[in-house]
Amino acid sequence: LQQNAKASVINSLILAGNAFYSRNWVLGSSGSLSAVVSRDPFQFVITQRGAHKGELTDADFLQLDELGKPCEPCLDLPSETAVHRAMIVEFGAQAVLHTRSVWSMVLSDLYANAGGLTLDGLEMLSGQSSGKIDQEAEWVPILENDHDPGTLSRLIAAQFRSRRPIHAILMRKSGLYTWGQNVAEAVRYVESSEFLLEVFGRRLHILTQIDLSEKSDKCI
Amino acid sequence: LQQNAKASVINSLILAGNAFYSRNWVLGSSGSLSAVVSRDPFQFVITQRGAHKGELTDADFLQLDELGKPCEPCLDLPSETAVHRAMIVEFGAQAVLHTRSVWSMVLSDLYANAGGLTLDGLEMLSGQSSGKIDQEAEWVPILENDHDPGTLSRLIAAQFRSRRPIHAILMRKSGLYTWGQNVAEAVRYVESSEFLLEVFGRRLHILTQIDLSEKSDKCI
Amino acid sequence: LQQNAKASVINSLILAGNAFYSRNWVLGSSGSLSAVVSRDPFQFVITQRGAHKGELTDADFLQLDELGKPCEPCLDLPSETAVHRAMIVEFGAQAVLHTRSVWSMVLSDLYANAGGLTLDGLEMLSGQSSGKIDQEAEWVPILENDHDPGTLSRLIAAQFRSRRPIHAILMRKSGLYTWGQNVAEAVRYVESSEFLLEVFGRRLHILTQIDLSEKSDKCI
Amino acid sequence: LQQNAKASVINSLILAGNAFYSRNWVLGSSGSLSAVVSRDPFQFVITQRGAHKGELTDADFLQLDELGKPCEPCLDLPSETAVHRAMIVEFGAQAVLHTRSVWSMVLSDLYANAGGLTLDGLEMLSGQSSGKIDQEAEWVPILENDHDPGTLSRLIAAQFRSRRPIHAILMRKSGLYTWGQNVAEAVRYVESSEFLLEVFGRRLHILTQIDLSEKSDKCI
Repeated sequence: LQQNAKASVINSLILAGNAFYSRNWVLGSSGSLSAVVSRDPFQFVITQRGAHKGELTDADFLQLDELGKPCEPCLDLPSETAVHRAMIVEFGAQAVLHTRSVWSMVLSDLYANAGGLTLDGLEMLSGQSSGKIDQEAEWVPILENDHDPGTLSRLIAAQFRSRRPIHAILMRKSGLYTWGQNVAEAVRYVESSEFLLEVFGRRLHILTQIDLSEKSDKCI
Repeated sequence: LQQNAKASVINSLILAGNAFYSRNWVLGSSGSLSAVVSRDPFQFVITQRGAHKGELTDADFLQLDELGKPCEPCLDLPSETAVHRAMIVEFGAQAVLHTRSVWSMVLSDLYANAGGLTLDGLEMLSGQSSGKIDQEAEWVPILENDHDPGTLSRLIAAQFRSRRPIHAILMRKSGLYTWGQNVAEAVRYVESSEFLLEVFGRRLHILTQIDLSEKSDKCI
Repeated sequence: LQQNAKASVINSLILAGNAFYSRNWVLGSSGSLSAVVSRDPFQFVITQRGAHKGELTDADFLQLDELGKPCEPCLDLPSETAVHRAMIVEFGAQAVLHTRSVWSMVLSDLYANAGGLTLDGLEMLSGQSSGKIDQEAEWVPILENDHDPGTLSRLIAAQFRSRRPIHAILMRKSGLYTWGQNVAEAVRYVESSEFLLEVFGRRLHILTQIDLSEKSDKCI
Repeated sequence: LQQNAKASVINSLILAGNAFYSRNWVLGSSGSLSAVVSRDPFQFVITQRGAHKGELTDADFLQLDELGKPCEPCLDLPSETAVHRAMIVEFGAQAVLHTRSVWSMVLSDLYANAGGLTLDGLEMLSGQSSGKIDQEAEWVPILENDHDPGTLSRLIAAQFRSRRPIHAILMRKSGLYTWGQNVAEAVRYVESSEFLLEVFGRRLHILTQIDLSEKSDKCI
């Protein structure tokens, strides 16, 4: 049964990797994908270091316990393992997806000093909102990437306990982390977040260039 | 017979959803697609709330009557239902497609205060024009998204009765609505509108940066 | 035999249409594709008005004689027929491809007053150059789109007789025309031209924003 | 055995060509791909001049010896052959991939006077790093493209002997060269380099437009 659960989440992660690769969100061997297989005993799987997310097979996944230690000795843990583990433990996430898009790279660096940025409509886009048409702005924190795993885990836990609900975290110069109650939900948060980051970036281009009050009513 | 008609429009909407998803126009679970099955009795189908437009199946469609009420009790109506219904009733549309592209998000917000923007060549691009080479500019209204369904429906009806013929409406921070006499025609208006919105946005980038009269005759 | 030649060029044009559609160069029902079937008697085929270039079938092609008249009475000639015919007659082209990309729309308008723009390396990119590493800049004329067919044909003929060899023409707000000794060669000129137009446009964005002499030696 | 090795590297290069074409990195007939078949006797294969990288077959590859001479007389050597040969000989590369993306074209020209540019995280992205989270900036030299083959080879050799390890070279107005111990590794460097060049270019757009210290803490 556990084997079926494991095969099922791995298959979902492989499909997610293919989809993200086709959208240029995990080029090179960037990104990392994880999901919980069972909570008791606690086990989760994660893509091993250097695996190409557009060509994943079963052999690219490592199985880990609650402390983030591999069930079998291995040296190929991705450096992001502590981040995945913290999100699974602190947020109760069943799946954690890390992508490295152009816009998440650019904006996570430009807004690092501000500690984050605000995206409109993340909840709604992901099909998780209460259905009201008006969209609420949502805070996306940006964490520095140069901490040791223990510090990073504590910073993530602190985000979870903050008053603002969050559905995505940017790691400076390293990209986006989102999560969900299953791989499908986490995939929607990736798509919605990446979409809104691109909207944010392109809007930034234009906003600073024109005085819209003068031009907006003319035909351009 | 009605069942055949229903299966046929649903199939066309599924193909449209796949195509829009591959172009990043309905990421997350954004967007909504509808089409008329019959006018008498009046029935139309619409994608249910939260359905992923890149993975639609028959089960993702709800059947509604003229008032926009589901034929069977259900709670999954998308929040955009009133907009679809109004366009079907007021414009006589047989299909209404709502996409959420990066450019429609950016421009629907930047030009909201102007009440709309002007696109060149929408009719011609969609293969619906009289064939003259000269292209006429066409007004695309931008409506605020935070009204109740009844108000939105009245605003849409008002657009239809205005002197200017329109083939697309932007909803602020929510994206594009187009329609047609069948799904294929509506798809062409989506493609043409999204294309022209991107042209509009990229032109805006450049226009405000350079004094073309000085530079345009040099080799750059 | 002639039937085989006709089937062969139509098949090549269908494949080109699919490829251009996937790259967003013929969205809506924009663009037009033509090729010579035989020179004696003179016959060429062209996509009919309003045909969607991503879904072409044999039935979407019209057969025309040297004057650009259809061999059978029909009313669906695309408005660009005179342009295609002129290029086939004046330049000796065997295939003429018209695409409508975002960048060709933006730049054909911005540089219309200059009469054209200069692209680096068009010959080389298309695999047609003599093989020298140094790339020669090539002039791409921009013609106004609002002339009658006869005037347009004369303007195109004039371009052909100018001292500068050209491999592409932009029509203002209407996109790109290229041609070749067969469909495959013309496709390469489309790809090379569209690529270089994007390079031109993105370079324009950056060039006017920064003083490179100050910044280029720093790590950014 | 040697035939198997040859068939295997050619197959890997064909797949790489298809992937690069779908990402618009080898449009027209641009780009060139090579790989070592054996070191003793020394033989490598390279795509012939003018071959379209999205439609490669076995017949598009030429076999060359250590001096870069074809094993059979032929006139179709790509002009970039000397560059490929130098990288194979000087860097010990087993595969060399040359792509021509929009961003490598734009940036190789803008930063030519600076002699190169610095990319963050190239090693890490390619799955080749030591696994530390902090990313080291890496220098990407830009060489002028208008030298004779002998000079170019010496310039490349000089880069290899410099103190800074490099994993990519830009050729001015001609694009990117990367290499690896096999085709798969070289493909990852292409993906990582092209990704980081796009990040670099888009960041450049924004950086020079806004005073982030003022705006970054506001919701935009």
